Amino acid sequence: MQIKAALCQMTVVADKEANLEKAAQLIRSAADAGCAIAVLPEMFNCPYDNRLFADYAETWPEGPSLKRLAALAKETKMLVVGGSVPERYRGSLYNTAFVFDAQGTLLTRHRKMHLFDIDIPGGTFFQESATLCAGREITVAQGSGIVFGLGICYDMRFPELARSMTLKGAQILIYPGAFGPETGPAHWELTLRARAVDNQVFTLGVSPAPTQGEGYQAYGNSLAVDPWGRVLAKANRAEALLVVELDLSLLDKVRQELPLLAHRRPLCY
Amino acid sequence: MQIKAALCQMTVVADKEANLEKAAQLIRSAADAGCAIAVLPEMFNCPYDNRLFADYAETWPEGPSLKRLAALAKETKMLVVGGSVPERYRGSLYNTAFVFDAQGTLLTRHRKMHLFDIDIPGGTFFQESATLCAGREITVAQGSGIVFGLGICYDMRFPELARSMTLKGAQILIYPGAFGPETGPAHWELTLRARAVDNQVFTLGVSPAPTQGEGYQAYGNSLAVDPWGRVLAKANRAEALLVVELDLSLLDKVRQELPLLAHRRPLCY
Repeated sequence: MQIKAALCQMTVVADKEANLEKAAQLIRSAADAGCAIAVLPEMFNCPYDNRLFADYAETWPEGPSLKRLAALAKETKMLVVGGSVPERYRGSLYNTAFVFDAQGTLLTRHRKMHLFDIDIPGGTFFQESATLCAGREITVAQGSGIVFGLGICYDMRFPELARSMTLKGAQILIYPGAFGPETGPAHWELTLRARAVDNQVFTLGVSPAPTQGEGYQAYGNSLAVDPWGRVLAKANRAEALLVVELDLSLLDKVRQELPLLAHRRPLCY
Repeated sequence: MQIKAALCQMTVVADKEANLEKAAQLIRSAADAGCAIAVLPEMFNCPYDNRLFADYAETWPEGPSLKRLAALAKETKMLVVGGSVPERYRGSLYNTAFVFDAQGTLLTRHRKMHLFDIDIPGGTFFQESATLCAGREITVAQGSGIVFGLGICYDMRFPELARSMTLKGAQILIYPGAFGPETGPAHWELTLRARAVDNQVFTLGVSPAPTQGEGYQAYGNSLAVDPWGRVLAKANRAEALLVVELDLSLLDKVRQELPLLAHRRPLCY
């Protein structure tokens, strides 16, 4: 089975409505290209800045970004992975990806489980845990004929999570993520390829395009990897709609040739 | 703390005594270069061929390869990681790395936990499980001032094992391994780098040099990686003694800047 996926590497600006309009354009272009699934980046409706998350946060089901995504999924008959948005839930903020199926129904949501707290002297400093709460649930769901697992950015760093999603049946691991100028070149492609090879799944990493302005600059370089670790498609740092065809039969082929998952020794670890 | 390690990428031939002599040369050269630890490749005393493992197998403590390694460790005052040899134990064969400390005492042994069974149509076919038994123990030990974890080749493929060794305190993960001509270019460096980045440890991958003759051809490309995923040194396919300096303070620095291990969510996986 072949499936076309679109990685929507969009620039995220301060104007939320402009972000939603840009997301809508890319999603419609993905549908025009014959895609069955479109993935937006992490924090696609809000600049990646702790001070802004509360202002941009939305609540299900009345949040305007969420309504918009639901309508776009229904209109385009695609699975739409809403990268992430700041979500307000019971008085707390989460970094949450809402996923809508081809009927525009909320299929699942993933709340980022691992919060990004980094402090490189003279380099990147970010402390998500200062404003956000961490999710507790592993997210695997079925839609448009595929079983996918969903993690957000730093979630990708944890091989336990990728393995767990794989053992729950995920064929594709989807990671909206905004790696930065230091961690991006060092670890973004490496990690997405390693998760693919270790778990014999497809991986998609979808980043915002950097803005060239002030504030946190995302790495870009959205990426699709096959279960043998080959890069199927890769953006650079410009805004881009990256369309990639995933041949799901490759997953079975690779797992037959080298049965990694069957060779695990869970009683020994 | 700085420590010098030697990756002994030796050609393995049918003549066991020649292999032992080659290993001795490389170990002595490593000592001359000021190394505190020398690592031999997987199956350094025996061609990598199921049909030969029984003939070349040795038993502790009387096996000649093992006695030789013990004597070399004592002579050079180095930690010697004896890549692996076929080991006969209670009527079964194992793919086992014997490790001797700087006094020549057996410090630990690792029996390959994951047996390599692969069947790529028109490509690599190998079925270790036809002749070998799998070990059940995770191997982490302390010697020459470092705590190291030890896996053999295919063991490297399992992120669970690397994580487990790390959580048991390993600062360096050592993988003697003989990846082949397909899996080598595809996954050897990727996997060693990913294990280093995910666990914020050093990783060493030590391969035999390919023989250019008949039979299974190892990939070579022995490799040392630091906890940020940078390749510190890399061999090509020729026989080589790769000497690399490991600055263990980098491990603490990386873990402070980006506390991956502290950010795990073990209750959620």
